[in-house]
Amino acid sequence: MQFYQQGFHPGDPRITDPLDRIIAPPLKHPMPSEVDVMIVGCGPAGLNLAAQLSKFASISTCIVEQKDDRLLVGQADGIACRTMEMFEAYDFADQIKQEAYWVNETAFWKPNTEQPEQITRSSKIQDVEDDLSEMPHVIINQARVHDAFLDVMRHGARKVVPHYSRQLINLEVNPTVTDYPVTLTFERLDSQHLGTIETVKAKYVVGCDGARSTVRKSIGRELVGDSINQGWGVMDVLAITDFPDIRLKSAIHSNNEGNMLIIPREGGYMVRLYIELDKLKSNERLSKKNITTDYLIAAANRIMHPYTLEVKEIAWWSVYEIGQRLTTAFDDAENGRLPHVFLAGDACHTHSPKAGQGLNTSVNDTWNLGWKLAHVLIGRAKPELLQSYSLERQTVAQQLIDFDREFSKMFSAKPKSTANPDGVDPAAFQKYFVKFGRFTAGTAIHYPQSNLVSSGKYQGLATGQTIGMRFHSAKVTRLADAKSMHLGHSMKADGRWHIFAFAGDQSFMSDACQVKALCEFLQNNPLSPIQRFTPKNADIDAVINVQAVFQVSHRKIEVSDIHSLLQPTKSRYGLKDYEKVYSALYEGNSFYDKRGIDKNNGCIIIVRPDQYIAKVLPLDDLDGLTSFFDKVLLNLAT
Amino acid sequence: MQFYQQGFHPGDPRITDPLDRIIAPPLKHPMPSEVDVMIVGCGPAGLNLAAQLSKFASISTCIVEQKDDRLLVGQADGIACRTMEMFEAYDFADQIKQEAYWVNETAFWKPNTEQPEQITRSSKIQDVEDDLSEMPHVIINQARVHDAFLDVMRHGARKVVPHYSRQLINLEVNPTVTDYPVTLTFERLDSQHLGTIETVKAKYVVGCDGARSTVRKSIGRELVGDSINQGWGVMDVLAITDFPDIRLKSAIHSNNEGNMLIIPREGGYMVRLYIELDKLKSNERLSKKNITTDYLIAAANRIMHPYTLEVKEIAWWSVYEIGQRLTTAFDDAENGRLPHVFLAGDACHTHSPKAGQGLNTSVNDTWNLGWKLAHVLIGRAKPELLQSYSLERQTVAQQLIDFDREFSKMFSAKPKSTANPDGVDPAAFQKYFVKFGRFTAGTAIHYPQSNLVSSGKYQGLATGQTIGMRFHSAKVTRLADAKSMHLGHSMKADGRWHIFAFAGDQSFMSDACQVKALCEFLQNNPLSPIQRFTPKNADIDAVINVQAVFQVSHRKIEVSDIHSLLQPTKSRYGLKDYEKVYSALYEGNSFYDKRGIDKNNGCIIIVRPDQYIAKVLPLDDLDGLTSFFDKVLLNLAT
Ligand SMILES: Cc1cc2nc3c(=O)[nH]c(=O)nc-3n(C[C@H](O)[C@H](O)[C@H](O)COP(=O)(O)OP(=O)(O)OC[C@H]3O[C@@H](n4cnc5c(N)ncnc54)[C@H](O)[C@@H]3O)c2cc1C
Ligand SMILES: Cc1cc2nc3c(=O)[nH]c(=O)nc-3n(C[C@H](O)[C@H](O)[C@H](O)COP(=O)(O)OP(=O)(O)OC[C@H]3O[C@@H](n4cnc5c(N)ncnc54)[C@H](O)[C@@H]3O)c2cc1C
Repeated sequence: MQFYQQGFHPGDPRITDPLDRIIAPPLKHPMPSEVDVMIVGCGPAGLNLAAQLSKFASISTCIVEQKDDRLLVGQADGIACRTMEMFEAYDFADQIKQEAYWVNETAFWKPNTEQPEQITRSSKIQDVEDDLSEMPHVIINQARVHDAFLDVMRHGARKVVPHYSRQLINLEVNPTVTDYPVTLTFERLDSQHLGTIETVKAKYVVGCDGARSTVRKSIGRELVGDSINQGWGVMDVLAITDFPDIRLKSAIHSNNEGNMLIIPREGGYMVRLYIELDKLKSNERLSKKNITTDYLIAAANRIMHPYTLEVKEIAWWSVYEIGQRLTTAFDDAENGRLPHVFLAGDACHTHSPKAGQGLNTSVNDTWNLGWKLAHVLIGRAKPELLQSYSLERQTVAQQLIDFDREFSKMFSAKPKSTANPDGVDPAAFQKYFVKFGRFTAGTAIHYPQSNLVSSGKYQGLATGQTIGMRFHSAKVTRLADAKSMHLGHSMKADGRWHIFAFAGDQSFMSDACQVKALCEFLQNNPLSPIQRFTPKNADIDAVINVQAVFQVSHRKIEVSDIHSLLQPTKSRYGLKDYEKVYSALYEGNSFYDKRGIDKNNGCIIIVRPDQYIAKVLPLDDLDGLTSFFDKVLLNLAT
Repeated sequence: MQFYQQGFHPGDPRITDPLDRIIAPPLKHPMPSEVDVMIVGCGPAGLNLAAQLSKFASISTCIVEQKDDRLLVGQADGIACRTMEMFEAYDFADQIKQEAYWVNETAFWKPNTEQPEQITRSSKIQDVEDDLSEMPHVIINQARVHDAFLDVMRHGARKVVPHYSRQLINLEVNPTVTDYPVTLTFERLDSQHLGTIETVKAKYVVGCDGARSTVRKSIGRELVGDSINQGWGVMDVLAITDFPDIRLKSAIHSNNEGNMLIIPREGGYMVRLYIELDKLKSNERLSKKNITTDYLIAAANRIMHPYTLEVKEIAWWSVYEIGQRLTTAFDDAENGRLPHVFLAGDACHTHSPKAGQGLNTSVNDTWNLGWKLAHVLIGRAKPELLQSYSLERQTVAQQLIDFDREFSKMFSAKPKSTANPDGVDPAAFQKYFVKFGRFTAGTAIHYPQSNLVSSGKYQGLATGQTIGMRFHSAKVTRLADAKSMHLGHSMKADGRWHIFAFAGDQSFMSDACQVKALCEFLQNNPLSPIQRFTPKNADIDAVINVQAVFQVSHRKIEVSDIHSLLQPTKSRYGLKDYEKVYSALYEGNSFYDKRGIDKNNGCIIIVRPDQYIAKVLPLDDLDGLTSFFDKVLLNLAT
C-alpha cells in the first residue's frame, strides 16, 4: 500500500478522506466503583492487557488514560517478529503486515577511508535470519498498533473502552481487605468534569503509566540506573534525498558529525530519522525548547554528507535522552505478601529507542501478565501464579538494559580511524547487530525454570522447541480440510493451555500408537488434567487444548479413525471440532525435521497460554503431564 | 478462525457480541437529481462497480437497492481464485483469506459396487492446480463480500453509500439528449416515504438488478435459453455427522437417491448442502411452498447413506431450479448508437449454482466495465471504448452457459452401473471437473482480439503471459526495500494502465540497456503515450504506470543508477516513488523462468487496468507501444 505522498494524516490509511480516519472518542461514562482489574495508562502495555482481558466475559476491566483520546502519531514504530506472532494470536497480524514497512535488509554506512568527511556504504545485511520466525520485522506508527488493540477490546467477550481524561492521583493498598484491596483516586481533566474526583476499588491494578509512573511511585518502587547524557532527536519526515538506501534501515556513522539511524516507514514515502545530538553537559536536560527541527535537519545533512535531505513535511518529532533504568521491583509484593499492584512497560524499564525495544518489551510484559491475571480471577489458578510475572519479566528487562547500554555506547561512539584510535570499528558494530538479531527480534526470550517452565530433562525429544522459549511455529497440513497452515497459529489469545502430541513411529491410531493411549488417558482417566481442571459444562478443550501431529501424509489418515478427544463434540449443539489433527508434512518438508522432533519416539510439548514452552516430555510420561498441571492449575471440575 | 459453534450470526465474526455485528443502515438521504453513473441493485455486481467508481473523486455514482439494508445471509459462497486476485487489487483479499474456508481438496463419492445403496469414496483430488494463482479458492458467505465492497465504497476518494428501499419502476433512454440521456423513476419502499416517486437523470445506467432485471426489460433485452426442470435445495447448516469428508468439498452421487454437493463453510463448523430434488414435471415451479427443510434433510440422509446427518441449526436455505439462460445483448446499443445502459451479473446470465460461478462471473462483469466507464467519464477515452464490454463479457457468459449445461447434466445424471448403463461414469465426471478447473477458477478467461487485446505476434517473448488473459503473478524482489512480493499485487483497482519492462541480457542501465532506452523515450519523446495521455499537473504515472524487472539480484543494482522514469518524483512535494523496480529473483526462482519471459531479449507487457494482458512486444518496439495506446486513449495533456 502506498500512502502519505500528499502529506501525513493519522488513522487508517485505507480511508481516503483524512477526516474520516479520526473517529470520535468514546462517550464520557463515569467509572465503575469496583473492578477486577484497573489498568492505568493507554500505551501499548496497557492496551495489550485490556485486549487480553476483554477475551474473558466474566472479568471486569477498566482502563484509564490522562490524555483525552487515543494516540494518533509518534513514539515507537518498530514491531519485532515475536510481537507480530503475538498480534497473530489476536488475528490482526495480517492487517499490520499489509500496512507496515517490512525490514528486510539493513545497510551500514561509515566514513570513506579516502575522504573521511563523506560517508560510504560498508555493507548490507539481511535483517532477520532465515526461519527465525514466520513473521516479518515491520515498522508502523505505534498509534496504528493502539488502534488494533482498541478494536480487539471493543469486540471482546467483555467489551472494554478506555476512560479518557482521567489522571491517577493516588493509589493505596490495604492488604487486610480481601475483596478489593486497592483504592485508586482519579481526577477528571476534561472541561465538562474538570477537577471531579472519582474513586475506584480494584482487586488488581496494573501500572502501565509510562516512565514517570504514578503507580510505581505509589508502591514505593524506583527506576534506578544511569544516564549517559547522550541526546537524540527523532523525526518522521516526508523528504527528498539522493541517499540511495533511504528505503532500507540504515545505520550511519559519520567521521565527526555524529551518527544517524534511518528507518523507512509505512506507505512508501515517510521515513524516520534518529539523529545523534552533541554530548550533553552533566545535568543538562534536553527538550524541544533548546532543539529545533531546523537544527535536526541541518545535523542530518552534515552526517549524511555528500548526500542531502530536503524535508518537505514533518509528521512528528521529539528529542530524547538516553538512560538505562530499571525498576527495583515489578510488583508490590513484600515479605511473602502476594502482589496486588503490578508495573509493566516503560513504568519498569527505560532505555534508548534505537534497538526498537520499548514498545515490544512493554507489550510482552503484559502478554506475560494477562493470562495469569485471568487464571487467578476466574479461579483457574491460585494467586501465587502472579509471583511468576516479576520473576520472568525482571530477567528480560535486565537483559534489555544490559544490551541497550552496550548497543547505545557502540552506536554513539565515534568510528575508529587514525584520528580516533579508540573509536568503534563499524565492522564490530555490525557484528554486534547480527549477534543480537534474535534478541531484538524478541525470539531469544528465555524464561527461567519454575513451576511454569520445567527442567530440560527431555529437551532432546524436541531440540528445536526450547523449554522456556516461545513455541517456534512451522507449517503443517491440517487433516480435515487439507489446509497448509502454521501450527503455531492454532494458538489464540484466549488463555488456554496447549498440549501438542507429536506421534512417534507407531502406526497411526493402532494399539501401539502412543497418541491414542495419551488421548485415552486424558479423556477418561480421573487423574487426567483435562478431567480435573476443566469446569463441568465447559467444552473439553476450554482449559487445555489437545492437538496432535502425525508423520504420515494427511491423505493416509481417515478422519473416522481419530480418537474422539482430538475431534471433540463441543458447544450447545455438540458439534465436532475437526481442527486439531495435522500431518507434519508440508511441501516436502516435515515439521519434525524443521523443529527437531524425535521421529522414533515423538513427544508431548506443553505450551502456555502465552505460547511459551512449559515442558517437553515423552508421550507415555503421564505422571509428568499430571504433575506439571497439578502445580499450576486449580481443580474447577468439582 | 473458528466461529458459529454456538449458532450462526451474520456480520463480522471478529466481533464477539452478535448484536454489534449488525451496523445501522445508512441515513435515508434523498437521491441526487443527476448522476454520472446510476447502478441499480446492491448484489455483488453492483457493489463491485460502485467500489471501483468510488476510487475516482470526479465521478458521481449512485447505487440503489429495493431491499431496506445490506444482505446478511445466503446466496452464493464460492470465491474463485481470480476473484480473490481482484479483491487483492482492492486490498481486502487478506481479510477474506483469514475468515473464509479454503478449498484445498475435493472428494468424490459414488455408489459402492458391492452394496450400491451405500456410498463410498472414489477419490480425493487437489482442488486448484499448483501455481494456477497465488490466491486460494475460498468459501464465504456472499454477504461478507458485500461488506468488504461497502467498506471500499465508504472509504473511497468519492464516498458512495447505497440508497436502500428504492425500487426502479421505469427507465427511459433519450439518445438525442447529450448530457444525461437516461431518466430513471424509483418508488420508495420504506414506511416513512412509502410510494414517494424519485426521478434521477444519468449519463450511464448499469442494471445489476439480478435475474428478473427491470433494467433489462426496459431496454428490450431478454434472457433466452432453457430450463431442464431440475430442482435443487440449498441449506447452510450446523450439523452432526459421521460423514468423514464433511470438511472437504464433496460431490456425492448416490445410486437411486439423487446427488448432493457438500461445501464446508467458514468458521470450522458450518456446511452448505446442495441437494438434488426429484425431476420436476414440465412447467412445475419449485418454491419454498412445496419443499420443506425436513424434506431436504431427509433427502440428504438418503443420499449419504450409510452416513447420517443431524441438523442442529439452519442458517439459511433456499430452493433452486436449474436453467441456463443468457441475455440477447449486454447493453442498449443499436444501429451504431453507442451504449448508455449496460447489464451485468445475473441480469445477463443465469445458470446452476454448483460450479460457483454466479457471484464470480457477476463481479467480473463489472470489473471489466468499471474502468471503461471511468475512462470515458474522466475523458481518458472515447465512448466507443464502452462497446468492448459487451464484446468481451458476452463471450465469457456464453462459455459459462455452455460449461454449466454440460456440468449440470453430468452432475444430475445417475451414476453408470449395470442397472443404469446410460448413466455418467463418476470417473468421467471427475475428469470433467479437473479439465475445467481453470475455467471455474476464473483464470481461463480469454478476451478476443480487439483494440484492447492485440494479436499474438510477440507472444513468444512471454509464453506464460497470454495476451487477452489476466496477468499471471509470481514473486519478485523489490529493489529499494528488498521486499519479496507478488509483482501482480503492484496493480491496484485505480484505473491505471501498466507497462512492465522486462530487461533482456544487456547489462543494467548500460548504454545498450533497452529498458533505459524505453524509459528515455517514454519520459521525453513527444510521441510517448505518457507524454501524450497524462494530464498536465498529474503525476507521471497517473495514467500509465511503468515498472521494470531485471534479471540480476537486487543487491547488484544501485538505486542511484535507475532511470528517473522508474523513480519518478510525485505529489505536491515532489517525493520519489521507489516502488517500481524489481529483481526477477526470489528464493532461487526467476520470474522469467516461471512465466516464460525471454531472457535474451526481454519484452514489454502492457496490462490493462483490469489486469488483463493487452499486448506483448519487444523492448524496442516503440511504434507498437505508441500505436496501441493511440487506439485506446485520448490526449489529455493539452
Ligand atoms: C514522546 C515519546 C516518544 C517516544 N519515541 C520513541 C521512539 O522514537 N522509538 C521508540 O522505540 N520508542 C519511543 N518511545 C517509547 C515507546 O513509545 C514506549 O516504550 C512505549 O510506548 C511504552 O509503552 P507503555 O505502555 O509502557 O507506556 P507509554 O506508551 O508511555 O504509555 C503510558 C500512558 O500512561 C498515561 N499516564 C501516565 N501517567 C498517568 C496518570 N497518572 N494517570 C493516567 N494516565 C497516565 C500516559 O499518558 C500514557 O498514555 C517514546 C515514548 C514517548 C513518550
Ligand atoms: C435467493 C438466491 C439464492 C442464491 N443461491 C445461490 C447459491 O446457493 N449459490 C450460488 O453460487 N449462487 C446463488 N445465487 C446466485 C448468486 O447470488 C448470484 O449469481 C449473484 O448474487 C449475482 O449477483 P448480481 O449482483 O448480478 O445480482 P443479485 O445478487 O441478484 O443482486 C440484484 C439486486 O438487485 C436488486 N433489485 C432487483 N430489482 C430491483 C429494482 N427494480 N429496483 C431496485 N433494486 C432491484 C435485488 O434486490 C438484488 O439485491 C443465489 C441468488 C439468489 C437471489
